Amino acid sequence: MLERNGHGGDLATAEELYGVPARQMLDYSANINPLGPPPGLSDILAREWVSLTHYPDPESRELRRAIAQKYDVDFSSIVTGNGAAELIDLIARVLRPATAAVIEPAFREYAEAAIKAGADILPVSASPENGFSVPEEELLDACREADLMFIGQPNNPTGHWFSRETLARLMDTAQRYHTVIVADEAFLDFFENEQCLTLLREAANSKHLIVTRSMTKFYAIPGLRLGYAVTHPDLVKTLKDMQVPWSVNHLAQAAGVFCLAQSSYETQTRQLIAQERSWLAHELREMDCLPFPGQANFMLVRLGVDAPDAAIVQRILGLQGILVRRCSGFKGLDDRYFRIAVRTRPENERLVSALRLALMGGREAG
Amino acid sequence: MLERNGHGGDLATAEELYGVPARQMLDYSANINPLGPPPGLSDILAREWVSLTHYPDPESRELRRAIAQKYDVDFSSIVTGNGAAELIDLIARVLRPATAAVIEPAFREYAEAAIKAGADILPVSASPENGFSVPEEELLDACREADLMFIGQPNNPTGHWFSRETLARLMDTAQRYHTVIVADEAFLDFFENEQCLTLLREAANSKHLIVTRSMTKFYAIPGLRLGYAVTHPDLVKTLKDMQVPWSVNHLAQAAGVFCLAQSSYETQTRQLIAQERSWLAHELREMDCLPFPGQANFMLVRLGVDAPDAAIVQRILGLQGILVRRCSGFKGLDDRYFRIAVRTRPENERLVSALRLALMGGREAG
Repeated sequence: MLERNGHGGDLATAEELYGVPARQMLDYSANINPLGPPPGLSDILAREWVSLTHYPDPESRELRRAIAQKYDVDFSSIVTGNGAAELIDLIARVLRPATAAVIEPAFREYAEAAIKAGADILPVSASPENGFSVPEEELLDACREADLMFIGQPNNPTGHWFSRETLARLMDTAQRYHTVIVADEAFLDFFENEQCLTLLREAANSKHLIVTRSMTKFYAIPGLRLGYAVTHPDLVKTLKDMQVPWSVNHLAQAAGVFCLAQSSYETQTRQLIAQERSWLAHELREMDCLPFPGQANFMLVRLGVDAPDAAIVQRILGLQGILVRRCSGFKGLDDRYFRIAVRTRPENERLVSALRLALMGGREAG
Repeated sequence: MLERNGHGGDLATAEELYGVPARQMLDYSANINPLGPPPGLSDILAREWVSLTHYPDPESRELRRAIAQKYDVDFSSIVTGNGAAELIDLIARVLRPATAAVIEPAFREYAEAAIKAGADILPVSASPENGFSVPEEELLDACREADLMFIGQPNNPTGHWFSRETLARLMDTAQRYHTVIVADEAFLDFFENEQCLTLLREAANSKHLIVTRSMTKFYAIPGLRLGYAVTHPDLVKTLKDMQVPWSVNHLAQAAGVFCLAQSSYETQTRQLIAQERSWLAHELREMDCLPFPGQANFMLVRLGVDAPDAAIVQRILGLQGILVRRCSGFKGLDDRYFRIAVRTRPENERLVSALRLALMGGREAG
């Protein structure tokens, strides 16, 4: 199956399954900024090419200074990683929780990392009936019981995010019950109100809160691998001590510094996503599908009652070179759900046409 | 100190210490092919730039096929990593040895990785009097006693390597006593007789032998991060299950495929290193220094009795923009030792002149 490595965006597997060359795929299964990397980044990489004969800075000094400046957090509260996935794994290994709470459905690396580190998972179910929110009492109960708690802010794949007020009560509970909250803000930079919602500044001074950030989705460089985490400097030091040396390659560090300064690209991205999200949602509802709300560059969709299963839809689209993410591998979701990225209008039109045909064709086949 | 991150090649720290811009440093503290990357690699990276908007292949399929073909091992016996350092760490975490044998002095990541994984270290001392070899009985005793045993083939920093015969007896002992040998062949591709000495083919079918390989030294791309390990396919699967997803970035994978095909560059590299090694050794002996023998692109050197300590030599050279590796951080070595890379003749001449002055000046200062 397409998700045999556990995630979307696996073009090499798609090529094996559908016979369409990887480079020709239109990928809605990974959530990457459809504008591509910020203009000028290729020049930076071409310039930095000569530095590949040297080891990367093991302390990512330039990049951490750029992050510190942009988000007004202390340099010593930042640790960079080979993608956010490395940091999630590292956090679980360093903290070795006996019990890790995960709000399901969720990015599967939370539970994977915790289980690898020897934890039992305390699942907290978010159901579609509540728009995938969790009653606050259940959330705080889980926080009291667990040693470590992962929250997606916003959650992937549901798109749900917590309010400032709920987060404040969660932080308070974590502090009192010695729980560490990992707030995964991998997609928060797509939000208009990012600066208001982010927990970066709180995390920089707290031993009970770690914010993880990906730089590969918003800046469209998943092939380079880049993420970072912010937490109390003491905890940063412990994480760094357990991290593999030279974890972040030099081009990723250089790209990161450049990307953080591209503010007009950021504005343009947010506008595009907001507009296309709304257009896609409308089209999907027209097809009797239910798109769940959100602000990030992806959308969870439930198929209408008469539609074929996501497995069939995925295969029909795949044979036409369009990849979508099945969601039956997520706890709490079944094969009535799929996830798509939000892309540019011409691409979205192609997806919508193909999907319309797939829903009709699949219905006839079914 | 220059090695505050535990290794050579830390240009950013060097810049802080010596005030010379990182890009102007002549780096003898990291062991990188002085020819730079194979000609044509920059074109490959420029071509692959557009693919950075996609996730790397999580299975590194193309690269593993290239390795399988070049070294005649099975595809399923290969796992790639974000530098060999990631794989050493991963191996220790997966195997969780109670006791790990390390021949000292050695690359510090062996013991670091084992200790992080909860192991006790069983040190096996290699002394300069024996040219840093270990009596075979001691070697086999340690293999019987340990669960995991690291050997550098060749050892970094001493340059020592084991004969085929000793390795055969070590493998035999490992098999009988259920020990896993990790043979680090990070520098073996610099050897003329690599094909005769490598354990890659044995490792591909053995659960008691893992060979780790770096691709960053020989192909001069440490900034990209790339390594791989070869062992029994069952063990590969276990390692892969514990590895972080998308660990190897896309440019590293593409570069690896290209580099493995550059046979004339390989020949040229081996010839240069052999020739310059011999020239450098001669010059060092003229200065009353003792260079230890080897075939790799680095050389351990003991300072003459009248010379200043390596700390002083390193600082004098550093202020002139030349970096060498102090060795007092290696178990069994003190500040009479330093390590240098083997580079091109004009660079080696610059090093030798600066070193000659440093030894004279340091003596006067001392």
